[in-house]
Amino acid sequence: MDLVNHQIRLAARPVGLPKPSDWEYTEEPVSEPGDGEVLIKILYISLDPAMRGWMSDARSYIAPVVIGETMRAGGAGEVLVSNHPDLAPGDHVTGLLGVQEYAVAHGNAVTKLDASLAPLPVYLGTLGMPGLTAYFGLLDIGRPAEGETVVVSGAAGAVGMVAGQIAKLKGCRVVGIAGGAEKCRYLVEDLGFDAAIDYKAGDVSVGLREHAPKGIDVYFDNVGGEILDAALACLARHARVIICGAISQYNATGAVQGPSNYLSLLVNNASMTGFVIFDYADRYAEGSREMGGWFAAGKLVSREDIAEGLENFPDTLLRLFSGENTGKLVLKLTTD
Amino acid sequence: MDLVNHQIRLAARPVGLPKPSDWEYTEEPVSEPGDGEVLIKILYISLDPAMRGWMSDARSYIAPVVIGETMRAGGAGEVLVSNHPDLAPGDHVTGLLGVQEYAVAHGNAVTKLDASLAPLPVYLGTLGMPGLTAYFGLLDIGRPAEGETVVVSGAAGAVGMVAGQIAKLKGCRVVGIAGGAEKCRYLVEDLGFDAAIDYKAGDVSVGLREHAPKGIDVYFDNVGGEILDAALACLARHARVIICGAISQYNATGAVQGPSNYLSLLVNNASMTGFVIFDYADRYAEGSREMGGWFAAGKLVSREDIAEGLENFPDTLLRLFSGENTGKLVLKLTTD
Repeated sequence: MDLVNHQIRLAARPVGLPKPSDWEYTEEPVSEPGDGEVLIKILYISLDPAMRGWMSDARSYIAPVVIGETMRAGGAGEVLVSNHPDLAPGDHVTGLLGVQEYAVAHGNAVTKLDASLAPLPVYLGTLGMPGLTAYFGLLDIGRPAEGETVVVSGAAGAVGMVAGQIAKLKGCRVVGIAGGAEKCRYLVEDLGFDAAIDYKAGDVSVGLREHAPKGIDVYFDNVGGEILDAALACLARHARVIICGAISQYNATGAVQGPSNYLSLLVNNASMTGFVIFDYADRYAEGSREMGGWFAAGKLVSREDIAEGLENFPDTLLRLFSGENTGKLVLKLTTD
Repeated sequence: MDLVNHQIRLAARPVGLPKPSDWEYTEEPVSEPGDGEVLIKILYISLDPAMRGWMSDARSYIAPVVIGETMRAGGAGEVLVSNHPDLAPGDHVTGLLGVQEYAVAHGNAVTKLDASLAPLPVYLGTLGMPGLTAYFGLLDIGRPAEGETVVVSGAAGAVGMVAGQIAKLKGCRVVGIAGGAEKCRYLVEDLGFDAAIDYKAGDVSVGLREHAPKGIDVYFDNVGGEILDAALACLARHARVIICGAISQYNATGAVQGPSNYLSLLVNNASMTGFVIFDYADRYAEGSREMGGWFAAGKLVSREDIAEGLENFPDTLLRLFSGENTGKLVLKLTTD
């Protein structure tokens, strides 16, 4: 094999938003897969808000990416060479493949996909980790009951759009919070949300009082900051707040903005519970089966926002933090 | 009856710490009890951090005290006149009797006490609302398992000292956080806590790392602010944080200090749940029975900090916020 691999490596720990000098673009020969391993040509790379946490050396649920290491990322690709009995050349797989063109991984560390059921990028979003994140966060922590009001922030993002749709499937009134008129239109008209609040156009508190007049029973938070505080101020009694993410805070150079209205939990006998999807690893099969069924039945709409080119990874990642993407942000690799 | 009643009424909504001009000392004749009502001579008045919230007109779990109204307070006293079939003169009762010398209340709105089982002030603390608050908050929300580490803030206060003792009864390792060497000594030597951290003497984070080396499984918070943040930074996986109060924030004139470390809930799959004791009204009997049993068996130590004189109510209340009291703060009335 004379294949050449290109990678994006972490060159420095970012302060605030990642800048070009925090990355290094490198080239090296593709290595040979060993016993049980496969060589994968990566076709799509997943861009996720959680990546910002992986770049930091703060104590977290997973070890940080080491300086000089290929950036960690989910990806989907095609097996070129297999030394694993369950995988053959031509198979499609997903896994933590890194920001690079080719990956060598153990066959047990990747998951085989059926590309005839859904396009590959869907397996990085709605039928992948973001979808499972929405599924377990909403259903296991939020426990929405029919008729309850569910509010989702970051609602036009990969996790939020799925969380809102699942809440609709469960018979809830669903209000999304997103930035911009087009995202809000999309949520209501294309995804069937009952209402959407454009946080860039006005006061979120006013929108919540209008669209959740009986209070919020389940709040699925992807953003933190002022929007979390606005939601806390509108909780119904016994509300469940799901802390899935806090994208507004990931690039903070000072202290994270804590929710000033957290005492709303006290007066409303409410709870706020955090999780990361890895907490549900032993239930992925259950979630994937149910999500796959909804998707196949047309009950769950997926949307991807696809950029191209490995070298565009640094700029594309920043789109997550400026809120430019609608749906799951994915990088398509154009090597051949 | 020619009895004269004196009251402390709310004269103005305080900004920050209540000041003398926020109160009015008034005198009026004692009114006659009507059908089903009793006339009570109040012997002890309960002073509670929650009173600060009742003085504010922010939306909460209970209506604020109206300006000009007698200040709301729990109390214990003796029935002088009864028009209720279940109560007779000489009976001891507790209820929301107000900051005054005599109260007229419906017999159904007060609870009869057995003064032979415990002194009256104990019924305002360990065997009253603070004790039930500790009981349901710790056991129902915290769900401590044997061997787990339980940390309690405000640990030498009326609620904290009971929460810590119940955690010990459940076989937990218990660490209290309190202000001052004497309070810390009391917690360890007299109440049997495993360790105590003096927040006035050093960095609470250092103390938590030392005394909760495996992380905090259950954190019972009475104080909010920096101590809550320090505890959040030390959570174990699947930790339960009980938001019972936030005495450090009740007199804030700006925004409440939100917990900057709340994303520790996310990385640790942990929860933070608030409550007020009224949420458990239908289970008071269960809690009282169990607490009464522990008290009678000598397994639960009670302590009261008793001031005297109705006219000293305003100054005594401030002792809660400066953290001067150890145990349940009570005002003894000296009328006769």
